[in-house]
Amino acid sequence: MSDKTKLSTESYKGVRDFYPEDLFIQNYIFNTWKEVVEKFGYVEYSASLLESAELYRAKSGEEIVNEQTYTFTDRGDREVTLRPEMTPTVARLVAAKENELAFPLRWYSIPNLFRYEKPQRGRLREHWQLNVDLFGVENRSADTEIITVGYEIMKKFGAKDTDFSIKINNRKIVNALYGKFGLNPENSNKASKVIDKKAKMSPDGFETALEELLNDKTKDFISLLESDEKLLEYIGIENPDVKDLVATIDELLSAGIENIVFDPTLMRGFDYYTGMVFEVFDLSPENNRSLFGGGRYDDLTSLFGEKKIPAVGFGEGDVTMKDFLETHELLPKYKPSTDLYICLLGDEFRSKGNEIAKKLREKGVNVAVDLSQKKLGEQIKIADRQKIPFIICVGENEINSGIYPLKNMLTGVESKIKIEEVSAIIRNHS
Amino acid sequence: MSDKTKLSTESYKGVRDFYPEDLFIQNYIFNTWKEVVEKFGYVEYSASLLESAELYRAKSGEEIVNEQTYTFTDRGDREVTLRPEMTPTVARLVAAKENELAFPLRWYSIPNLFRYEKPQRGRLREHWQLNVDLFGVENRSADTEIITVGYEIMKKFGAKDTDFSIKINNRKIVNALYGKFGLNPENSNKASKVIDKKAKMSPDGFETALEELLNDKTKDFISLLESDEKLLEYIGIENPDVKDLVATIDELLSAGIENIVFDPTLMRGFDYYTGMVFEVFDLSPENNRSLFGGGRYDDLTSLFGEKKIPAVGFGEGDVTMKDFLETHELLPKYKPSTDLYICLLGDEFRSKGNEIAKKLREKGVNVAVDLSQKKLGEQIKIADRQKIPFIICVGENEINSGIYPLKNMLTGVESKIKIEEVSAIIRNHS
Repeated sequence: MSDKTKLSTESYKGVRDFYPEDLFIQNYIFNTWKEVVEKFGYVEYSASLLESAELYRAKSGEEIVNEQTYTFTDRGDREVTLRPEMTPTVARLVAAKENELAFPLRWYSIPNLFRYEKPQRGRLREHWQLNVDLFGVENRSADTEIITVGYEIMKKFGAKDTDFSIKINNRKIVNALYGKFGLNPENSNKASKVIDKKAKMSPDGFETALEELLNDKTKDFISLLESDEKLLEYIGIENPDVKDLVATIDELLSAGIENIVFDPTLMRGFDYYTGMVFEVFDLSPENNRSLFGGGRYDDLTSLFGEKKIPAVGFGEGDVTMKDFLETHELLPKYKPSTDLYICLLGDEFRSKGNEIAKKLREKGVNVAVDLSQKKLGEQIKIADRQKIPFIICVGENEINSGIYPLKNMLTGVESKIKIEEVSAIIRNHS
Repeated sequence: MSDKTKLSTESYKGVRDFYPEDLFIQNYIFNTWKEVVEKFGYVEYSASLLESAELYRAKSGEEIVNEQTYTFTDRGDREVTLRPEMTPTVARLVAAKENELAFPLRWYSIPNLFRYEKPQRGRLREHWQLNVDLFGVENRSADTEIITVGYEIMKKFGAKDTDFSIKINNRKIVNALYGKFGLNPENSNKASKVIDKKAKMSPDGFETALEELLNDKTKDFISLLESDEKLLEYIGIENPDVKDLVATIDELLSAGIENIVFDPTLMRGFDYYTGMVFEVFDLSPENNRSLFGGGRYDDLTSLFGEKKIPAVGFGEGDVTMKDFLETHELLPKYKPSTDLYICLLGDEFRSKGNEIAKKLREKGVNVAVDLSQKKLGEQIKIADRQKIPFIICVGENEINSGIYPLKNMLTGVESKIKIEEVSAIIRNHS
């Protein structure tokens, strides 16, 4: 290698660089999430992305930790994992202070998560995920609220009810079905894994896979899975879990959430769900896939402490959400945080420019002063390329008269005004 | 190990968990940073914390990368580092688009950074750092602005001019001094390292360390370092770098920044600084140390591309800033994002409670509805322990009369009002 070898400007594989225009979109998504969840009384927490590998082994097993996570040994011989999901972390935090915290607890966070796999569309090695959790409520009022929050996020992004549907299921009902078909826990688990992959299988393949577990009862089993009503009747409409599911759906419907559907095949990957599970699906033909989901996990905190704290929550990824918003043309246009660019007709006017900037900043205007020392035309080009919406010029005439030309870069309209008037015009515009 | 072995609730060593009250402080620091830098026209960018190890080897060397960073090999045989600083990343981003970006470029970011060392007060394994950079301006106007931004951040946090001082130096002046004393580049570098540690050494130790490089010229050298005026005269007041330094200080003084001091012994650690360097110091006796700093690095982008893009910037860590704010009693009191807790006099009023919450949320109030199904007294305790400033009760009487008791939890004042009046009262309070 010669001395002239240059470093690569590429990012590490499977992660993203966020130039201001990219970060604008990410901040839009984050801020929309925050606004909605805070409206429902959720408060923000956070933690480091470095966690003990042990935290994931407990529920996910050795193999998954080694093959699907970034795990390495530190010099103190600790096995460290870059968190692949936030739920074990939040369960750890809640368990650590279970006696100090006042329940019910509404918490949210927007952590970055890591997975050690081949990058593909919508699945990067690093992504961010809104995590919303409600701890300490055993009854369905928490399930209803969590689904409502998910629904309101979609609405806040501008999605119409016809753009997405919310599927709901309950692990307990599925388990009751397994029980009635005589499946032991191990085979129940296998059946769940098969059902989870139903959408990706042919009807024949699905049947064959279930036959290994259910033998001659397979067809009956599938026909129950395919008819919500028959299934609920089969389990028994007086069964408390069936009653609960029906009541949850009724509550959501009467609150105006009409795109909710019971789907007994909805499984969701994680082992830790214990009751209600739900998932939001994009209904557009070209992007017909899962957007996000969650459910009830009442056992997770007991991994850490004596108390079993009921919990329900969901996780929503930024990459998936951005894809959805792009598909449905719901993304906002880039606008920098800077409102005004002050052009200088000579470096001798810089201190005056800084003085004006200082005054305007005190009135809440975000102001950049030109430092390029280039000609006016070049300065205007800089502001234009950076998409700054207003410019003003400072030179001898302006300083002497106290009248400055303020140009709206989007409309091209120029007004001759006093500095005191600038902030009001800019505020009216945005 | 028995089945009953519980997972630890402790975080990984040297990193922090952020419960809502902790994150409130971190968000306060981040939001203050953002507000000030955006006022000056800086726009936000970001990147992944995973970077190629090569990015740091180029400037820092093999040893530092292996011993002071988290570096590991991924399954694609790439050496990955958890970024220990942001400057190489931002230089990479700028170099990658050097032909598309419009300069001068004002950029900021608040990344988390990692160092593989023994945790101690103010130095954790993970911390966050505001990075503010101005690219594309060769002259001192950018130096002045960057220092001004640093100063305004301190003021925005509530610091008085007497709480801190800003030391300034210029690498070029120091290099001119080395040249006049006949030091070659290697010994110049060694001298810088000795001077950088001056504050931690005894006067004798300092002299002895310099004698190895300067022999009988040591005393002359030290006496120049200790008298700003003599040093500048010795280099020559017509020397362009001396003139530049004096002009920079004059510009800052006339803009009202009076706690600026020239300190020829100010070195700053990083090798990549090429001109002006500055550092902000806490002046309180019990916490008398460096708060943050930065300087000019005109060569860094040329590691990646053909162009050499002049740059000046600084980095400011969250842990150090929090220590400063604690010492000076400048931290705000915790206030959750939730404004109002709706207590329910029975679960049968939940749908009415949700209906009221929905109306208030539309008016911008952040509302949590009680789901505990506990007695009123218990519900009030929950709101109180979560420090939610207002509560309201919903029961049969309230629904029938349309008049609700709104209680201010801080003052104890209760008002009987209509729902339509709630948002105005809460807005007036905050």
